Amino acid sequence: MAEETDHPLERLVFFSDAVFAIAITLLVIEIEIPDLPKGASVAQYQHELQSLIPSFAGFFMSFAVIAAFWAAHHTAFSMTRKYSPKMLPWNLIFLGLIALTPWLTGFLSRNLNALLPTAVYFGAFTITALLNARLAFMATSAATLEAETRDKVSRLRRRCIGLALGAFTALCLSFVLPEQMRFMGLLAVPIWTRVLVLSAPSQRAQENV
Amino acid sequence: MAEETDHPLERLVFFSDAVFAIAITLLVIEIEIPDLPKGASVAQYQHELQSLIPSFAGFFMSFAVIAAFWAAHHTAFSMTRKYSPKMLPWNLIFLGLIALTPWLTGFLSRNLNALLPTAVYFGAFTITALLNARLAFMATSAATLEAETRDKVSRLRRRCIGLALGAFTALCLSFVLPEQMRFMGLLAVPIWTRVLVLSAPSQRAQENV
Amino acid sequence: MAEETDHPLERLVFFSDAVFAIAITLLVIEIEIPDLPKGASVAQYQHELQSLIPSFAGFFMSFAVIAAFWAAHHTAFSMTRKYSPKMLPWNLIFLGLIALTPWLTGFLSRNLNALLPTAVYFGAFTITALLNARLAFMATSAATLEAETRDKVSRLRRRCIGLALGAFTALCLSFVLPEQMRFMGLLAVPIWTRVLVLSAPSQRAQENV
Amino acid sequence: MAEETDHPLERLVFFSDAVFAIAITLLVIEIEIPDLPKGASVAQYQHELQSLIPSFAGFFMSFAVIAAFWAAHHTAFSMTRKYSPKMLPWNLIFLGLIALTPWLTGFLSRNLNALLPTAVYFGAFTITALLNARLAFMATSAATLEAETRDKVSRLRRRCIGLALGAFTALCLSFVLPEQMRFMGLLAVPIWTRVLVLSAPSQRAQENV
Repeated sequence: MAEETDHPLERLVFFSDAVFAIAITLLVIEIEIPDLPKGASVAQYQHELQSLIPSFAGFFMSFAVIAAFWAAHHTAFSMTRKYSPKMLPWNLIFLGLIALTPWLTGFLSRNLNALLPTAVYFGAFTITALLNARLAFMATSAATLEAETRDKVSRLRRRCIGLALGAFTALCLSFVLPEQMRFMGLLAVPIWTRVLVLSAPSQRAQENV
Repeated sequence: MAEETDHPLERLVFFSDAVFAIAITLLVIEIEIPDLPKGASVAQYQHELQSLIPSFAGFFMSFAVIAAFWAAHHTAFSMTRKYSPKMLPWNLIFLGLIALTPWLTGFLSRNLNALLPTAVYFGAFTITALLNARLAFMATSAATLEAETRDKVSRLRRRCIGLALGAFTALCLSFVLPEQMRFMGLLAVPIWTRVLVLSAPSQRAQENV
Repeated sequence: MAEETDHPLERLVFFSDAVFAIAITLLVIEIEIPDLPKGASVAQYQHELQSLIPSFAGFFMSFAVIAAFWAAHHTAFSMTRKYSPKMLPWNLIFLGLIALTPWLTGFLSRNLNALLPTAVYFGAFTITALLNARLAFMATSAATLEAETRDKVSRLRRRCIGLALGAFTALCLSFVLPEQMRFMGLLAVPIWTRVLVLSAPSQRAQENV
Repeated sequence: MAEETDHPLERLVFFSDAVFAIAITLLVIEIEIPDLPKGASVAQYQHELQSLIPSFAGFFMSFAVIAAFWAAHHTAFSMTRKYSPKMLPWNLIFLGLIALTPWLTGFLSRNLNALLPTAVYFGAFTITALLNARLAFMATSAATLEAETRDKVSRLRRRCIGLALGAFTALCLSFVLPEQMRFMGLLAVPIWTRVLVLSAPSQRAQENV
């Protein structure tokens, strides 16, 4: 019986992982491939590569973003004991935004320093992070039995909230920061995440007292 | 012995899930990435984004369509107890049409409001839904033991028939509806599905009586 | 212990399935998407679609070819009881050719009726089929215990040889057949496969005697 | 309990395998598809195919490189008994470079014989190989119980070091070798790997003494 209920959960997790993996690998398609005439000098190649720096920055930024969502999803669903069909639609909308990331990244990289693409990128990131938090809370709602698990769940939830707060901070900052530093707001993500996770009270410690 | 027979089923399910996941993520490739000159105004960006609305509509529509087929496949195969080699060719033709969806979506999005692309899209959708229903019926044919399962099977089959009827209704409406609303016929899908699933008699209830 | 040895086999099968699924879904990328001006007539669309018939033919042909290889691989590895590291390099070369299929298909579809692309396609198909047969023989070499399994193995091996003979026949015919029918040689594949599988002697039957 | 800790490891392995499989299959996208006018001669096709030789060489080279990394990853994680969250960030950075391979390959193939693209390719290869070695050492750190496993671990580690030394040698040689032979340095990889693996002392043999 247990296996019967686990099977749909496994397929959901599998399907999600596949979408994460494909979206993260498709990011590379948006990076243009320089095609210089034979005998081009090293300086010409360097110049071409330099003009691709925004694309590489976008690639690695979105790689980190998708990886962070994958890791949170991964942790949340490894603690899920029961499959709830209610998670399905939320998960699909969430995956729809993950699948959109290669486009968002290309739009940002090719129009770096412009306000709107940055705002669109961070706006989508904020919505994705909110959906991710919603999913993580649903997935861990029944997993509150042992103190150790409770601590893990609490840390995960704080990390998810940190992701959403960080994305939202980056969105707000993109309207304020000067052109060149517009996507520096992304640094708010690790800061928020770290602060929230470190300030989590340990329930295990309390119980031991 | 049970495991030996389950193995091919697992690989079939895995392979299908991978094709679903890749097709759903490849949809994003068909959305063009605006590449405006440096210093373009916010208005210019808004204009570019507006011209992409059909592409985004197509992306989300096809995302929902593939997700609906995946969910039905998912439910049907989670109730399958025995692998039948007869399902293989049907499943492959079905997956062939799923794999074609990114092209169908691009064709529709770039020629929105034109009759033929809409009809082709809904026509392919109808055929896919019929194959999906065929598969779901095959996969659940041996799973009629307990009353609870029988109810689930009945709801699933009604959902699959609803998908096919909805797709066919959308196809018919695309010839009749005015240009701007041509793909509104898609709304027939959730209506048919909901009506059929809600009108399903509960066999469990009957037995309890 | 059994699980320890099964694990690499499972990952090999998983990796192969993923490559099959991605290659089969990437086929769609090679089909061009018509982009007609607003208000184009139905006749214009029909004309555009007609010019895509070779691309669709190529898509469905290669879909069938990859699916046939996947099904053979699937059957062979479901009967493998022991993982042999010797299969790894053969499997990787085989997958390299499977991954090349989208290119081969695009090359064939865009230059239909030309001799060289057809010969290249069928040549690669022949080599892939030979590698597939080699792999299937390796994977089933230790699985000769029960009579029922022996029959299955024998049918599988005949199917794999049929694939290779069919591909080779198609290659030879492509030099002889008139332009318009050049890839009709592909019909040799189901014929050879059917003939060889049907003519397989049943060892179970013999034993029962 | 054991299963609970295995689950994240399985998902990590699954996710990595999917990225490997997608990156290896996306390589094909970078190979241009010749599109000659109807009635082009065989000589014209041959000429077109000849101009694609660098692309094919790049395809097969990167296929072998990704396959080698996948095989090492595969072996290392099949010997891992305990999931350590510390492996996660290393694995993600490693996968980021694997996902970048299609771009690196395209850059190399389209600018063959130029110094910078070759150096970039081999430089990235060296970094990837170092990350791969780091990961393999982490994954096998707790797997030193039996003599047989110890031998396997030792061979794997030597293979990973061989990959890194080979990539670094290829990088150095690319600055020295004449234009036409620049990526011949790659041959250092199988040489280093073979030498290191063959020179591994067998701990099992020693114990038997």
